Amino acid sequence: MTEHVDIPEEEAFGITDKFVSDMMVAVDANDENEVVRILEPLHPADVAHLIEQLDPRDRRNFLTVWPGGIEGDIISELDDSLREEVIDTLNRDELAEAVQQLDSDDVVDLIEDLDDQQTEAVLEALDDTDRALVEQALAYPEESAGRHMQVELVRAPEHWTVGDAIDYLRSDVELPDQFYHIILVDPRMKPVGYVTLGRVLSSKRSTPLKEVLEDTFRTFHVAQDVEEVAQAINHYHMITAPVVDDDDRLIGVITIDDAMAFLEEAAEEDILRLAGVGEGSLSDRVINTTRQRFPWLAVNLVTAILASLVIALFEDVISGLVAIAVLMPIVASMGGNAGTQSLTVAVRALATRDLTDANVWRVIRREILVGLFNGLIFAVVVGIVGFVWFGNLTLGFVIAAAMVINLVVAGLAGTGIPIILEKLGIDPALASGAFVTTVTDVVGFFVFLGLAALWLI
Amino acid sequence: MTEHVDIPEEEAFGITDKFVSDMMVAVDANDENEVVRILEPLHPADVAHLIEQLDPRDRRNFLTVWPGGIEGDIISELDDSLREEVIDTLNRDELAEAVQQLDSDDVVDLIEDLDDQQTEAVLEALDDTDRALVEQALAYPEESAGRHMQVELVRAPEHWTVGDAIDYLRSDVELPDQFYHIILVDPRMKPVGYVTLGRVLSSKRSTPLKEVLEDTFRTFHVAQDVEEVAQAINHYHMITAPVVDDDDRLIGVITIDDAMAFLEEAAEEDILRLAGVGEGSLSDRVINTTRQRFPWLAVNLVTAILASLVIALFEDVISGLVAIAVLMPIVASMGGNAGTQSLTVAVRALATRDLTDANVWRVIRREILVGLFNGLIFAVVVGIVGFVWFGNLTLGFVIAAAMVINLVVAGLAGTGIPIILEKLGIDPALASGAFVTTVTDVVGFFVFLGLAALWLI
Repeated sequence: MTEHVDIPEEEAFGITDKFVSDMMVAVDANDENEVVRILEPLHPADVAHLIEQLDPRDRRNFLTVWPGGIEGDIISELDDSLREEVIDTLNRDELAEAVQQLDSDDVVDLIEDLDDQQTEAVLEALDDTDRALVEQALAYPEESAGRHMQVELVRAPEHWTVGDAIDYLRSDVELPDQFYHIILVDPRMKPVGYVTLGRVLSSKRSTPLKEVLEDTFRTFHVAQDVEEVAQAINHYHMITAPVVDDDDRLIGVITIDDAMAFLEEAAEEDILRLAGVGEGSLSDRVINTTRQRFPWLAVNLVTAILASLVIALFEDVISGLVAIAVLMPIVASMGGNAGTQSLTVAVRALATRDLTDANVWRVIRREILVGLFNGLIFAVVVGIVGFVWFGNLTLGFVIAAAMVINLVVAGLAGTGIPIILEKLGIDPALASGAFVTTVTDVVGFFVFLGLAALWLI
Repeated sequence: MTEHVDIPEEEAFGITDKFVSDMMVAVDANDENEVVRILEPLHPADVAHLIEQLDPRDRRNFLTVWPGGIEGDIISELDDSLREEVIDTLNRDELAEAVQQLDSDDVVDLIEDLDDQQTEAVLEALDDTDRALVEQALAYPEESAGRHMQVELVRAPEHWTVGDAIDYLRSDVELPDQFYHIILVDPRMKPVGYVTLGRVLSSKRSTPLKEVLEDTFRTFHVAQDVEEVAQAINHYHMITAPVVDDDDRLIGVITIDDAMAFLEEAAEEDILRLAGVGEGSLSDRVINTTRQRFPWLAVNLVTAILASLVIALFEDVISGLVAIAVLMPIVASMGGNAGTQSLTVAVRALATRDLTDANVWRVIRREILVGLFNGLIFAVVVGIVGFVWFGNLTLGFVIAAAMVINLVVAGLAGTGIPIILEKLGIDPALASGAFVTTVTDVVGFFVFLGLAALWLI
C-alpha cells in the first residue's frame, strides 16, 4: 500500500523569484525584446501577479518599457489597488482595445474600482451593445447577483431534442467563451431545468432534452447577494447558477469560477476584518495603509483607556500591594484571548450558516461551559503562581477567582456579541473584536482589582 | 440607469429554522412518514446541514426514527466530527449500501476521519475495483493531489475527431457523473491538451480535436499539495486540473468544485488558527472544544507571566508613582493590536503568494513605516491623555515615546515573525500570534516602565 512518488520541487502556479529578477534586469536595460520574450508565454494572471510584486518605481519603468501595452485580461487579473494606476498609463485607443476584449461582467468588475473620468473613458470605448449590458448591470445593487452575472449563456426551448441543441450550437450563433450547461426555458423565458453538456454529448440525437435534465435545479433572484449565491454554488456543488428577474425570466448566470473568486475574497475580508485591518493590499501606499489600520487602533485606544479608568478606581489597592500591579495584566490578557477564540468561531459559524436560531442557545451554553472549564484549569495554575511568587495565599485566591469569572464572561461575550451584531445588521467580523476586548479588559481588571480590594486590603 | 428590483427575503440556500422545528416535532412524535415527507425533497447537503444543527440527543432520536437510513452522499456532506457518530448507527449492510453509491474520491475523503475498525468495514463494503482505487489513493501522501483526485475522467487519443469523440461518448462506456473536458493523450498516455465540451458540441464532426484545444494547458504532479492545485485552479480559472504520475501519464483530475471546497476549508483553517482555535466544529463535545482551545491559552499564559516578570523588575517605579500602573496596559495593548494587524496581513499574503522573496524587504519596510506613522499619531494622543489626566508632562513624554517604539516593533515583529516561521517550515497562521504578542507585551511594558524609571523616578 505504499508507492514511491517524487515530491515536486516546483510550485503549482505563479512565477518564481528568478523570473522577477530576470524581468527587472531586462527592464533596467530598457530591453523591449527581452521583456516581450519573457512575458509572451505567460498567463495573464501571472503577468498581473508579476506587476503586483514590483515596487512602485520598477512598476512605472516596466509599464514604460513594455511596448504591447497592457491587455484587458491582465487588467482584470490585477489587484484592485493597481488598476487605476495601470489604466492611467494607457491612452484612449489602448484602453478601448483593452476593454473591448473583455466580457461584460469583467468590464463591470473593472469599472467598480475606477474614478468617474476613467469610467467614462471605458464606457465610451465599448460598442453600443456592450455598453448597454454594462449600464444594465451597474443599475443593480452593488454585491447583487445582477451586478456580477454573466449575461452570455446558452438556453434552449424545453421541447428541443439533443439533436436540435447540437444543430443550434453548430450554427453561426455566438457562444460564450465557456459554458457547461444548456438551460431549458419555457415560452415565457422561465427556466425549467438544465442539462450538462456531458449528458448532451452522451445521448442520442433523438432524445428530448427534458429526459436528460439534472435532478436538482435552483434559480437565484437578480437582487440576491452574490456572496450568498456563491455559497449556494459551493453548498450544492453547482457549476452554473441561473439568475432570474422579478418575472422569473432567465437573464444571466453566475459561474463556479466566479463564485470561487467571490468566496476567496469574502473569506479574505473576514480574516482581515477580524484583525481590524480594512480592505487593502501590499501594493497600497504607506499612507493609505496607515489610514486603513488607524480606526481599529483608535477604537482599541478607547478600550485601553477605559481599562485604565477601571484601574484608576483601585489606585489605593495597588499602592497598598504592588504585587497586584504585577499580576494585573494576566487576567485581562487571558480573557481577551479566550474571547477572541469564541468570537472567531461564532463569526465564521454565522458566515457559513452553521450558527442559526435553531442552535443559538446550545452554542452559547457550550461556549460558557468551555470558558468555565478552561477557567478552572487556569485558575489553579495562576493561583499557584500568585501564591508561590508572592507568598500570599489570598492573592492566589483573588487571581484564581478573577480568572474563572473572566473566562466565563469571555465565552458569553465572544458568542453573544457577534450574534447580537448580526441581528442588528452590523457585520460581526468588523465590530465584534472591539466590543469583546472591551468587555474582557474591563471585567478582567475590575474583578481582579475589586476582589483584591475586598479580600486583601 | 435605475431599475426596480425586489430584494428577496428568502435565503439563497440552506434550511429554515421553521424547517428544523417541524422536523423536531415529527421526530418527537416518532412519526416516520412525516419525517420522510419532510426530508424527501431535500438536497443531501441540506439533510447533512439539518443533522449538524440538532443537539446530540435530538440527533440520536432522529437517526433512530429515520427508517431509510443515511445515504452515502449525506455522509459525504456531513461535518467531519459527526461522521463517526453517524456511521456507528449503521449496520454492515446499510454501510455497504451507503458507500457503494459514492465516487472513489468521496470514499477516500470519508475514510480519513474514521477509526481503523470503521475503515475496515467501509473497505470491505466496496467491490474489488473500487477498493483497489481507494487503496491506491490512500497510498499517496495526505493532502496530495493523488489522495484527492477523481480517477473517473474522459480521455481521447490525440488523433480523434469531434465525431469520434461523440460516437465514443454515445457508446456504452461508463462516464463520470460530471465532466466538462475531454483530455487528449498521446500513445504513452501523456496528456497533451484538452477540449471543452462546449467546443466539441459547437464544432463539425469532421474537426480534429487537436484543432479546438484550449489555449493554455497545465498538468499537476500527483504528489503536489492539493491546496496548491486548488489555488492554481482559482488563479488560472481552470475547471479541470489533470493530474499526472512520475512518468507524466494522466491518472486523474481535480475538479473545480472540489477545489472550491478545499480553498474554503483552507481559509477557514487559517482564520481559526490565527485566533488560536484548532480545527473543530460547533458539533464537537464541550470537552473536546475545551481541549482544543487550551493550548493557545496556555501559551498566552506564559506570555502574560513573562510580561508580569518584566513589570516585577520595576516594582519600585510603580510604588513611586501609581499613575504608572494605571497607564501601563495601554502601550502593550496598542502594540498587540498593531502587531496582530501586521501579522494577519503577512500570513495571508504568504498564503496567497503575494509576499515573496522578491518583495519581502519592501513589505517589511512598509510595515515599519506604517507602525511609525500610526505610532506618532497615537503618541501625541496618549501623551496628552497622560499629561492632562495626571498633570505630569514627563509622564506624557514617557508614554508617547513608548508608544512610538512599540508600534514600530509591532510592525517589524508582525511581518518578520511569520516570514521566519514560513522559512522554517512552521505554519505561520498557527504560531505567529503567540510570538508577536510576546514581543509586543514584553517590549511594551519594558520600554514604558524603563523610560519611567529613567525619567520619572
